[in-house]
Amino acid sequence: MSAFDELMAFQRDTQALGQIAGRLGWDQETMMPRGAAPQRGEEMAAIEAVLHARRSDPRVAEWLQQAVAPNEAGEAQLREIRRSYERTVKVPADLAKKIAQVTSEAQGKWAAARADEDVAAFVPVLEEVVALKREEGLALAEGGDVYDAMVEDYEHGMTGAGIAEIFDAMRPGLVELRAKVLEKPAPKMLQGTFDEAAQMKLTRKLAKVFGYDMAHGRVDKAVHPFSSGSGLDVRITTRTSETDPFNCFYSTIHEVGHGAYEQNISRDYLLTPLGSGVSMGVHESQSRIYENQIGRSRAFTGWLFEEMKGAFGDFGIADADAFYATVNAVHKGYIRTEADELQYNLHIMLRFGLERALMSGDLAVKDLEGAWNERFEADFGYAVDKPSNGCLQDVHWSVGLFGYFPTYSLGNVYAGCLYQALRRDVPGLDAQLAQGETRGATAWLKENLQQHGGLRSPRDTIIHAAGMEPGHQPLLTYLEEKFSTIYDL
Amino acid sequence: MSAFDELMAFQRDTQALGQIAGRLGWDQETMMPRGAAPQRGEEMAAIEAVLHARRSDPRVAEWLQQAVAPNEAGEAQLREIRRSYERTVKVPADLAKKIAQVTSEAQGKWAAARADEDVAAFVPVLEEVVALKREEGLALAEGGDVYDAMVEDYEHGMTGAGIAEIFDAMRPGLVELRAKVLEKPAPKMLQGTFDEAAQMKLTRKLAKVFGYDMAHGRVDKAVHPFSSGSGLDVRITTRTSETDPFNCFYSTIHEVGHGAYEQNISRDYLLTPLGSGVSMGVHESQSRIYENQIGRSRAFTGWLFEEMKGAFGDFGIADADAFYATVNAVHKGYIRTEADELQYNLHIMLRFGLERALMSGDLAVKDLEGAWNERFEADFGYAVDKPSNGCLQDVHWSVGLFGYFPTYSLGNVYAGCLYQALRRDVPGLDAQLAQGETRGATAWLKENLQQHGGLRSPRDTIIHAAGMEPGHQPLLTYLEEKFSTIYDL
Repeated sequence: MSAFDELMAFQRDTQALGQIAGRLGWDQETMMPRGAAPQRGEEMAAIEAVLHARRSDPRVAEWLQQAVAPNEAGEAQLREIRRSYERTVKVPADLAKKIAQVTSEAQGKWAAARADEDVAAFVPVLEEVVALKREEGLALAEGGDVYDAMVEDYEHGMTGAGIAEIFDAMRPGLVELRAKVLEKPAPKMLQGTFDEAAQMKLTRKLAKVFGYDMAHGRVDKAVHPFSSGSGLDVRITTRTSETDPFNCFYSTIHEVGHGAYEQNISRDYLLTPLGSGVSMGVHESQSRIYENQIGRSRAFTGWLFEEMKGAFGDFGIADADAFYATVNAVHKGYIRTEADELQYNLHIMLRFGLERALMSGDLAVKDLEGAWNERFEADFGYAVDKPSNGCLQDVHWSVGLFGYFPTYSLGNVYAGCLYQALRRDVPGLDAQLAQGETRGATAWLKENLQQHGGLRSPRDTIIHAAGMEPGHQPLLTYLEEKFSTIYDL
Repeated sequence: MSAFDELMAFQRDTQALGQIAGRLGWDQETMMPRGAAPQRGEEMAAIEAVLHARRSDPRVAEWLQQAVAPNEAGEAQLREIRRSYERTVKVPADLAKKIAQVTSEAQGKWAAARADEDVAAFVPVLEEVVALKREEGLALAEGGDVYDAMVEDYEHGMTGAGIAEIFDAMRPGLVELRAKVLEKPAPKMLQGTFDEAAQMKLTRKLAKVFGYDMAHGRVDKAVHPFSSGSGLDVRITTRTSETDPFNCFYSTIHEVGHGAYEQNISRDYLLTPLGSGVSMGVHESQSRIYENQIGRSRAFTGWLFEEMKGAFGDFGIADADAFYATVNAVHKGYIRTEADELQYNLHIMLRFGLERALMSGDLAVKDLEGAWNERFEADFGYAVDKPSNGCLQDVHWSVGLFGYFPTYSLGNVYAGCLYQALRRDVPGLDAQLAQGETRGATAWLKENLQQHGGLRSPRDTIIHAAGMEPGHQPLLTYLEEKFSTIYDL
């Protein structure tokens, strides 16, 4: 066997073990008996140790030195394996262990602090986490920017400055649009209760309508919806609320975006580094374009309105135009995960600015709450009322996720670019969506983006599919047009 | 760290990875999307390779040489680790790979031959399997008996001769009892259909009634019921048939026997070699005593009769005595998995004799069908009508399972011994069971057997719990008394 083939065979087993670890995570959120948690912790640690040993195996370095790629995809495979290997060996094992230990502890302290509305109780442990993550960032950056090194983990090739450029360009327009919309009367809300079994029935229909392949996936319930797995076994979850069926339906469509991306990657890349979505941002672009640009469009919601009437009878909405406004209603609120399509990016941009400043040292943890509240009022127009609605609302920082938040809005930015290209390339899209027919859109996304998996960098993936550099303008224009129509601006 | 502690820490991770591999098997039979099979095959192979490497890791041999056990349980841990290590390294890797390959192929050929009723099509590949398994047996036996070496994998300390002694002593009595029973009129059968959701509801109640801990387990449906996992995450499955609710209920009680055994092992042994059921035979003793001696007793079926009337209304059985006869009905039949409590052991003894002869070379594969049919007619009193009802009915031999079949009947033999001791130690047992109260029985089994896991050998486990050497007499006496009463012999 050639060095390339030996490396790919070794890597294939590593990928397979990674799939197993991922499925353990799925099981934990969906099927695991509640008393099994302590044992599960040991199981996860054991398989993570196996994965770490394989990812940093010295033979990988040797194979990488000798391997000759047979083609372009092979070169991309080597590039991804090299990136993963170098990333893994840069971080000292002791530091990785310490981070795992402190973040585990910090997560518990964060939950308690949030429940008690007590920022001061969280500050010391978050200071520890920030210090350790900066140490890790210094090791990864090798003299470069610490925050850039963190972004690299989630959106390789992107930098803090590159993100700031996009976000800074988008912010004034979003703040202005939000202010105008919130001066207008709020749309009507759904009335009554919605049978949860009927929600699950319609949610499975929606998953199929959006091209999710049930032969290579399944839909279950979880407290926090997610998608899990690559290749031939890609599972999604959703949730139900008796009074808020949109939560169920749009969680499902969102997760189908993630899941269909994984399912649609070329089978040639199965169990290889190219066989998963290329980055968090590109992944989010798929979930967001399914959920928002397609799923919350006037055309598609017209079809959904009829489906919901068939499933639930009358729920107090007179016609499809009113339903469209209800689906896209913009409300005041403090919580990122409950935010609408318009305000969501303001939440992210706030977090991006703060975490970048924490990592550069420009912001001290003890000043985080003040900085959060100040920025929130500037962008949202009203003050944070309590820490659980402010800087204690997200788990991310407590578990050491820095550089991750901006990928949510990068996904929206990418989705804006892709949607512009999609509308250009697929004439009659609205007429299709009005019939509940998404194949025109999903086939375009599969052909131009999803099938390629990790072949190109995140940026080149978007350029290849959308025919343009990722930038804020398509998203901002789309949001301005959409909410101007709905709110009669 | 001492060599003992290092070895135990290493072993703990191996056990945790073994639990993960087992849960993948559970997932495959219950949750896995149907199109995921090819990927799952690679995943299983990858984790099995990791496990094999750990089980044969040269460091284990070094630690075993240096380790000093701190107590009796520690000595038992070392004994079990040594047994597993020596077993693993005795079989050459090439041979293990070849066996995996040929048995995978043989399983497909067996299924096709069974469908076509074509023994000749199966003979060549079974010859290959038998030759390879004998080669493996010779490597394991190191000059000893090949079949004994195979039995050691499933029931360590037991031998082919030891099993033959028990089975030979039991066979005439069973054949005679079977003949007498089948001369009598058959009990009434259940009438009507039984809602499958109502079956699952009652089956979950039965699981709880038998002490299955839902905080550390779950009940799902599978084509072939099984139990999976050890320690804090022990899952069972059952199945439903619209016309045969007993299939559901007694599959559940059987699997609860397996599952409760795993759940009740001392937490001190969690993720250690002592933390699982000690052998296949002892495991089967638990499933069988739950299912048969307790679950099919006159006392317990009296309670179940009322429960079933409550769940399903009238099903054509007049009273609890008639219901007891229906539950324990003995029918003619060819298929082991459908056999009743009385005839089941005849099926096993037949297979034991034949597979032992195959391994010793006294029986050639080409003569297997003739030998099967001859023995069947001698023990059951009528001739096999077609190969799918004869020597092609079980998957076991095609996948290389030799030495496994006898553990089913050893389990029944052990259950006979345990039940005799249980009745001696728990006065008023029947009065409890008649109220659907199994705690007297299950607490006795936990205290005297289950909690000890792998601390003692299978034989010593039974001696410790039952206070007697394992032998056929208690089982035979129990069966004679039970079926004499039911059939008025």
